[in-house]
Amino acid sequence: MQPIRLTFLGTSASVPTKERGLPAVHISYNGYSILFDCGEGTQRQLTLAGISPTSIDAIFITHLHGDHVFGLPGIINTMLLNNRRKPLYIFLPPTALRRVRWLVHAIPLFPLFPIAWIPVREGTIFEGREFHIEAVRLDHTTETFGYIFREKDRRKLLKDKLEKVGVNDWRIYRRLKAGETVTWNGIELSPEEYTTLVKGRSIGYFVDTAPTYIPPVDYLIHDSAFGEGEREKAEEVKHSTARQAAEVAKKIGAKKLFLYHISPRYRDPTPLLEEAKEVFPYVEVAEDLMTVEL
Amino acid sequence: MQPIRLTFLGTSASVPTKERGLPAVHISYNGYSILFDCGEGTQRQLTLAGISPTSIDAIFITHLHGDHVFGLPGIINTMLLNNRRKPLYIFLPPTALRRVRWLVHAIPLFPLFPIAWIPVREGTIFEGREFHIEAVRLDHTTETFGYIFREKDRRKLLKDKLEKVGVNDWRIYRRLKAGETVTWNGIELSPEEYTTLVKGRSIGYFVDTAPTYIPPVDYLIHDSAFGEGEREKAEEVKHSTARQAAEVAKKIGAKKLFLYHISPRYRDPTPLLEEAKEVFPYVEVAEDLMTVEL
Repeated sequence: MQPIRLTFLGTSASVPTKERGLPAVHISYNGYSILFDCGEGTQRQLTLAGISPTSIDAIFITHLHGDHVFGLPGIINTMLLNNRRKPLYIFLPPTALRRVRWLVHAIPLFPLFPIAWIPVREGTIFEGREFHIEAVRLDHTTETFGYIFREKDRRKLLKDKLEKVGVNDWRIYRRLKAGETVTWNGIELSPEEYTTLVKGRSIGYFVDTAPTYIPPVDYLIHDSAFGEGEREKAEEVKHSTARQAAEVAKKIGAKKLFLYHISPRYRDPTPLLEEAKEVFPYVEVAEDLMTVEL
Repeated sequence: MQPIRLTFLGTSASVPTKERGLPAVHISYNGYSILFDCGEGTQRQLTLAGISPTSIDAIFITHLHGDHVFGLPGIINTMLLNNRRKPLYIFLPPTALRRVRWLVHAIPLFPLFPIAWIPVREGTIFEGREFHIEAVRLDHTTETFGYIFREKDRRKLLKDKLEKVGVNDWRIYRRLKAGETVTWNGIELSPEEYTTLVKGRSIGYFVDTAPTYIPPVDYLIHDSAFGEGEREKAEEVKHSTARQAAEVAKKIGAKKLFLYHISPRYRDPTPLLEEAKEVFPYVEVAEDLMTVEL
């Protein structure tokens, strides 16, 4: 099974602190290199995490607030200086497109590799061979999308069983893996009998948002800007409390919740963690440069 | 004597490394808070150095290359979130003005405090009570200015001498300090006799540039992007080698040279330091978050 490596690059909200940079999360999977958001300083955080900024294939921007996008001109400038040739795909809310392009092109970039600017709608927006990315509309003060990295389900061959009936042909393997029923030497080989279904893993990135409907995911990265003491403030500015994030995680049956997008007022995030744990036990506070292998 | 605190925030060139952020230097003096350049990540480096990003009074931009300006939108966003009211003065080359404004205003900033955009010409461009800032045209691939922080010379009263003749009046003190000759009880008090001249300290920030004419300064922060092995490259892209920076320091009789704007190719800057030391002994490699009290 290919590992999915999830790296938190910046975990603060609005303003960076000594401990936390601005929002960005990296996913590395089977040669793909993907960013969710690109706050100021993202290229340096990537370097500190040992990930080449130039490797990024696609960037998924949640919304048009500075702390989520001000890292774009710098990382693109670095890609250019590193002689990047491959295109960069930037997905973003339709209402953010024009201004984020201004931001990136304010200072002339030359010679520029191709940049594809892709306005996002709800549903599957990026289809890879082994995974896809879904966009989900969130509830914030401006048009905002959350993103899901969803590995496709796959069929694993039951090699022992297949050897018993004498099958040893990769073409038959391939068809079984694709879910086809194959007739071979008069025997009917069904995928249900000769393979097992391995469920794909999924990661959801949901910032900035008040609690809202989101589809089930295994690993949930959720806005936890505030503690319960600031619940009114959270409602007013359309963010979530850590406890509310935990309620979402419980409702969708997540395997793990990462408290993310922590307001600078919580230098010690322990109270947030405790409030979340009352609702949902499998929870951790995301920290800068924390890497999780799934 | 008021201390001048000089803090190197980012000391890399073009691209940040694990050890070095993008160009920015901070000067703190008698309540003034000043930045030279504002590369991506400057607001976080300020926070790490214990300096409030919101405190900055004026930013002096050398030229329109991304690594020197991409920190502006983020620091201004943070000032806004911190309810800044006082105006921010941004000095920059005339040819950079339009595009840097685009960069800052690409994403709506609201409610914004006043920003004064001031195109720079050679000479004194900012006059404080105890210091001024001079701009010097440099030799780079685009219109570039270097900046000098120059403390004014001041007269220090020779209190013992004044007491001997019986003067103890702050109005006379003030006039002597201002360089006036004062007649008191029939005695002529000349500033030459009753004060000493204390020369003001000066700091020069000269990046990005090939070696060029610059006026004398005490503390010289000079482009040292390359070593002698890359001298041709340095000439081609209009930067300086560490040795060339040392030659400038020697020529102008600087007290101290800081090698600055170090290319990411020199993870270990020792060779640059050694090449510079052959020419000029009072030299140090600037490091991120290094603070010097003058």
